[in-house]
Amino acid sequence: MRDLFEVASPQNAASKLEANINLEMSRVEEVPLLESLGRVVGEDIFSPEDLPGFSRSTMDGYAVRAQDTFGASEGIPGYLTLVGEILMGQEAQLTLGPGQCVKIATGGMLPEGADAVLMVEYTQEISAEMIEVVKGVGPGENMVRRGEDVEKGQLLLAKGSKIRPQDLGALSGLGLTTLKVLAKPVVAVISTGDELIPPEETPGLGQIRDINSFALRGQIEEAGGKGIYLGIVKDNYQALREKVEQGLAQADLVVISGGSSVGTRDVTLDVIEDIGEPGVLVHGVSVRPGKPTILGAVKGKAVIGLPGHPVSAMVIFDLFVIPLIKKLTGEKSGLASEARRSMAAKITRNMASTAGREDYLRVTLKEKDGELWAEPILGKSGLITTMVKAEGLVKIPAVKEGIEAGEIVDVVLF
Amino acid sequence: MRDLFEVASPQNAASKLEANINLEMSRVEEVPLLESLGRVVGEDIFSPEDLPGFSRSTMDGYAVRAQDTFGASEGIPGYLTLVGEILMGQEAQLTLGPGQCVKIATGGMLPEGADAVLMVEYTQEISAEMIEVVKGVGPGENMVRRGEDVEKGQLLLAKGSKIRPQDLGALSGLGLTTLKVLAKPVVAVISTGDELIPPEETPGLGQIRDINSFALRGQIEEAGGKGIYLGIVKDNYQALREKVEQGLAQADLVVISGGSSVGTRDVTLDVIEDIGEPGVLVHGVSVRPGKPTILGAVKGKAVIGLPGHPVSAMVIFDLFVIPLIKKLTGEKSGLASEARRSMAAKITRNMASTAGREDYLRVTLKEKDGELWAEPILGKSGLITTMVKAEGLVKIPAVKEGIEAGEIVDVVLF
Repeated sequence: MRDLFEVASPQNAASKLEANINLEMSRVEEVPLLESLGRVVGEDIFSPEDLPGFSRSTMDGYAVRAQDTFGASEGIPGYLTLVGEILMGQEAQLTLGPGQCVKIATGGMLPEGADAVLMVEYTQEISAEMIEVVKGVGPGENMVRRGEDVEKGQLLLAKGSKIRPQDLGALSGLGLTTLKVLAKPVVAVISTGDELIPPEETPGLGQIRDINSFALRGQIEEAGGKGIYLGIVKDNYQALREKVEQGLAQADLVVISGGSSVGTRDVTLDVIEDIGEPGVLVHGVSVRPGKPTILGAVKGKAVIGLPGHPVSAMVIFDLFVIPLIKKLTGEKSGLASEARRSMAAKITRNMASTAGREDYLRVTLKEKDGELWAEPILGKSGLITTMVKAEGLVKIPAVKEGIEAGEIVDVVLF
Repeated sequence: MRDLFEVASPQNAASKLEANINLEMSRVEEVPLLESLGRVVGEDIFSPEDLPGFSRSTMDGYAVRAQDTFGASEGIPGYLTLVGEILMGQEAQLTLGPGQCVKIATGGMLPEGADAVLMVEYTQEISAEMIEVVKGVGPGENMVRRGEDVEKGQLLLAKGSKIRPQDLGALSGLGLTTLKVLAKPVVAVISTGDELIPPEETPGLGQIRDINSFALRGQIEEAGGKGIYLGIVKDNYQALREKVEQGLAQADLVVISGGSSVGTRDVTLDVIEDIGEPGVLVHGVSVRPGKPTILGAVKGKAVIGLPGHPVSAMVIFDLFVIPLIKKLTGEKSGLASEARRSMAAKITRNMASTAGREDYLRVTLKEKDGELWAEPILGKSGLITTMVKAEGLVKIPAVKEGIEAGEIVDVVLF
């Protein structure tokens, strides 16, 4: 495999990876309604009842039989007999006969026989038993009929929908106080490197605290996954192999945040290659930063060896791992769900790139003369603070040899 | 106040509201680093140390004194004495003299005297004690100097920054395992209406389950706030007044999700007006759906009476309450933080509007002939499922009398 080393385009690399992993997620868990916000629905949800369960007024006024009001106008008003009032929250027990009306408030239940609500503005109380009508109303006006919001048995939310605030509203309106959602995909994160120590320890000279596993767990969470951290392993075949096996047993996807040295990379390659079929699929991608990436799969689960430099690790994670996590969440992709927060801006300076390689620039945004500008942050990919300063990434596609100052670019915001 | 009833433009209404509330948030809480994702930093964070704490190699190769390599080429190679190897994670204890080099891997500590790393690709091991150099290297190349990522005492994150994955990485790299963040603004939600029952109960005829308090709590959470629910109160002055007082004691902002009848609205108006200064600020806004909105303030806290129809309540919440919650989170606003997920699309049909009023259309998205189209969902504002079907909102500004089929609109996605 080492000998066949050939740098892959990101598109080829991603499709090779996807072709070798199982993206179906079937674990379902039940959660209280309010906790389901942002989660993905685990089964088609059909309405258990009509909403509303009775015809309701949407205005303050009088429930009427619409035909009794036809033709009424300021010049030739109509007259209706007022036979009562409907109190909010109570069943309308009377039945409306011809020429009759009842007083009703917004939200009140329409009585039998009524098929419209006359707005109070177009009426005049003549006496305790009679109102004058100066404008007619059509059937169904100023009311919501039983089941008009959703009917019993109708599909409310399809499996794979992501729960938004309005969905919480509809579900609570139907009395669905718990919800079956798909489990979040579990992503195991392993850090490798003889020089790494956990953040709570004080590094000696030559040692450095683990940066990547924290940044990556943040990315996992934002993508809708659940990160589990398997700790730091030394650059040692047996130790790494055990961790990867543990990851494959506990998680849907395994990420190895590697050192960037050839030695570390070799250990990661050996482990991914040996641990199961098909093993290493891609070694090296034509992306900057991030070239020394290893994409592999074992028995339908992705095993990814990320570059060690923090910026490279985050860019590659964004490019290859986040799309997998999003698919594993089970969310149906749609036009809206795929939109990322982005802004068009002009780039402030020429940036060279190599044709055949995708470049990702870290940028900050600024406004000048009413225009939005993206300012590249120049800095080594080993410096996490260049990502802290950045507000987004700009991609230079592989077909381009760079971008010129003033060119309009799409800034994908963090 | 009732007599002065005058419909306000949304811009005037919002500035009147803002002028009367205190948007400073000073409650700080300490959380473990990983839980700080998405939270707002509560104090300026200065780096407690240099990162990295020693000069490190970013390539596999040889640590050198750059000047010793100047002029080396394929034709006239240079030669350096190999005096050892630096192991990963260990202190480099030797000092490099003129003409000397040491073997080093990516991430390894540079020895005293070295100021660059020569990539292994440009060298040849001649013997165990000598290498040949075919390309020179400049000072600082292929290495990160001590403190180059961030220096001790330098500002890493300003108060008001929102924590993103890369910030977690930088903080863990500096050993900051807990973080002081601003408390989430607390928003109290009160539902009013004689016809309302909680979702776990079975409605009798004339009763309806509470929809709005769930949709609103979803919106509060998405905006970065913490919703607390004070339950359903009947349309009764004393009961509502007690709840609003409880809300003002426990929360930073109080939202009353009202019935839409005049009676309910009157009770809400009376309570907001009586409970403290300045009371009701705006009654009625030129927005559809959402006209019967009440904006008030009591001792620096906003008290909002939302319309009862679910779609109206959500639109008004989005327009007036979410901006307040976002400000109360303490997040510094910036070009990137204000961007919402949106898409440009062509509207599929003519939609009339009234000049002087902002209209919000619910739309779904579809692709046709490679173009993105926004299809309005026509339906009463009392129907929550119209929001469930929708993928976003399109605003028709007050200055327009409608939009024509084929016109390009900005769809703000849910």
